[in-house]
Amino acid sequence: MERDFIEWLRQRTQPTREVGLGIGDDAAILKFSGQGQVVVTTDMLMDGVDFQLDRCDPRRIGRKALAVNLSDLAAMAARPVAAFVSLALPREGGLQLAKELYEGLFAIAEEFETNIAGGDTNSWNGPLVINVAAIGSVTERGPLLRSGAKPGDWILVTGTFGGSLLSRHFDFTPRVREALHLQEHFELHAGMDVSDGLSLDLSRLAKESGCGAELELSAIPLSPDAVAIANQNRDGMSPLDHALGDGEDFELILAVAPAEARRLLDLQPLTVKMSRIGEFVATPGLWSVSESGERRPVVPRGYEHNLQ
Amino acid sequence: MERDFIEWLRQRTQPTREVGLGIGDDAAILKFSGQGQVVVTTDMLMDGVDFQLDRCDPRRIGRKALAVNLSDLAAMAARPVAAFVSLALPREGGLQLAKELYEGLFAIAEEFETNIAGGDTNSWNGPLVINVAAIGSVTERGPLLRSGAKPGDWILVTGTFGGSLLSRHFDFTPRVREALHLQEHFELHAGMDVSDGLSLDLSRLAKESGCGAELELSAIPLSPDAVAIANQNRDGMSPLDHALGDGEDFELILAVAPAEARRLLDLQPLTVKMSRIGEFVATPGLWSVSESGERRPVVPRGYEHNLQ
Repeated sequence: MERDFIEWLRQRTQPTREVGLGIGDDAAILKFSGQGQVVVTTDMLMDGVDFQLDRCDPRRIGRKALAVNLSDLAAMAARPVAAFVSLALPREGGLQLAKELYEGLFAIAEEFETNIAGGDTNSWNGPLVINVAAIGSVTERGPLLRSGAKPGDWILVTGTFGGSLLSRHFDFTPRVREALHLQEHFELHAGMDVSDGLSLDLSRLAKESGCGAELELSAIPLSPDAVAIANQNRDGMSPLDHALGDGEDFELILAVAPAEARRLLDLQPLTVKMSRIGEFVATPGLWSVSESGERRPVVPRGYEHNLQ
Repeated sequence: MERDFIEWLRQRTQPTREVGLGIGDDAAILKFSGQGQVVVTTDMLMDGVDFQLDRCDPRRIGRKALAVNLSDLAAMAARPVAAFVSLALPREGGLQLAKELYEGLFAIAEEFETNIAGGDTNSWNGPLVINVAAIGSVTERGPLLRSGAKPGDWILVTGTFGGSLLSRHFDFTPRVREALHLQEHFELHAGMDVSDGLSLDLSRLAKESGCGAELELSAIPLSPDAVAIANQNRDGMSPLDHALGDGEDFELILAVAPAEARRLLDLQPLTVKMSRIGEFVATPGLWSVSESGERRPVVPRGYEHNLQ
C-alpha cells in the first residue's frame, strides 16, 4: 500500500531545522535565511543506462541517485538542504525495492545533512526509474559558476580520473565538503563537477567562460581504475584515454588565478589531493601542450545522450 | 545531440527576475525575497499509467506534467517560480518527442509565469517518463496546509467532480490563481487539491487535521463528464460514485469557519463556482449525512499506487 509506505517514509525522515514541513502534505516547505539564493538541480537514473538492477544492490543505486545531485550542488559550492525522490518501480517486488533504495538514500542523506523532504512513489510495468531533485543554499561567498574562468587561470582538479565504471561511479564521494571549504578559504574563479568526462566537461567550462583550455596530459592524475580497465579491455584505449573520457568521476574542476593556485597546491587543504592539469587560454577550444610547448587540439570526449 | 537540444532549450527559456541562473550550469539559482519560505513539489508521469503516448498529443502530456505540480503549489497557496524537467525518452524519435513535450510545457509555464530553469534529458530503451519538480514562494499570508481544519468548519470546493478521464485530466486549470486569491482575501483553515479522488483526498485532509469529515452527498457538484462516463460505462457506478472516486479533478478542497464560508459563498469571488459539500466533525473518519440527519460511514475511494 502506498499509504503505508509513505507512513514508513515519514517516520524515517526527521525534518531538519530548514525543513518547515516534510513528507505528508501537498508539497514541502523549506525555510531559508541569509542570502535568499537557492540552488536547484535534478538528475534521473534509469535501469539499463545508469545501472543494471539485476546486477546491483539497490542500496547502491539509491545512494548514487542522491550522490550525483549532491555532486551538482558541490559544483556550485552550495550547501545541501533537501532532496525530493520520484520513483517508477516495477510492480513485482516494488515495495521491497523501494525500501532498499531508500536505505541507500537515507545513509548518504544523513552523511551530508540532507533532508529527504518529499517525493512521488509510483509503480508501473516498466523498468526502475529514479529521479532526485536536490536543493541547496548558497554560502556567504556566493555560488561557484562555470562562467568565471580567465585566460591564465590554472586548471585544478580534485582526485583522480578514469575507470569509474569498475565501482567508483557508485561509491564516489560527492565533493560537497571540499567545495565548501575551498570556496570559503580560496578565491575560485569558476568550477564544475566531472560527470560526463574530464575533457568534455572541461571544454564546457571553458566555453561558458568564453575561453579555451590547455591540458598538460602528463599531469592528469590517473585513477588506479583507469589503469585496471585499460588492462582488462585491451581495446587500445590507454589509461589516459579513460581519464579523459570515461566520466562519472565526480571530481571538481576549478579555475584559479596562478598565485592563489600555487598557495592552494602548497597547502593541500583537503583530504583528497589537488593537482594542476593545465591552464585556461584565450584561444577557444580544448588543447594539449607537450613539455616542449607544442600545442595540439584535443577532441572532447565523454557521455552524451544521443537524441534522435 | 543532447548539446544542441540544451542550446534550443536555453534559447526558449528566458530567466525571470527570480531565476538568477537558468539552464546551462550544474544547477539553477533562484533568488527569493521576503518570507524566505520555499515550497517544493515533484510528480512523475509514466507512459501506460498517466497517459498513453500512442494515443495522445505529446504537448498535452508536457502540459499535464507541469500542471499537476502547479496544482500542488496551488494546494499550498504558493506562487509558482520555477520548474525542473527530467525526461527518459524512447530512443526512437526522442528528439522530436522532447520538443513536442516542451511545447506543452512552455505554454502552461508562460500562462502561470513559471520559469523552466533546468532539468535532465535522457534517452533509453524504455517507455517515456517525465518528472517535474516545481518550486514556489509562500505569500505574506503563509502557506495553506492540510492540517488546520477544525470540527465545525465547512468543506468548500471549487468546480465539479468526476469523469476527468474523458479529457479534463489533461486540460484542467490548476487552481493557482484561485488559491492565491482566496488565501489573500479569506481566512482559510486548511486546503489541498484533489488528485487521487475527492473522498480519498478529503479523508486525508481530515486525518491530517485530527478530525473527521461529513459529506452532504446531494451537494457534491457533479461534472457533466461524471454523468457522461456513467452513461458510457453502464457498470453500475453512478455519477456520484465517479465524483467521489475518479480523481484527477485538480480542484481545491478547503476548510473554512462557517461565517467566513458563508461570506465566501455569497461573494463567489472566483470565475469557477465554489460549493459547500459538508463539514468537518470531531469524530474521525469519513461520513455521509442524509437530509434527515442520518450519518453513515463512507469508504474513501481513489487512486493509490499498489506497491507489492
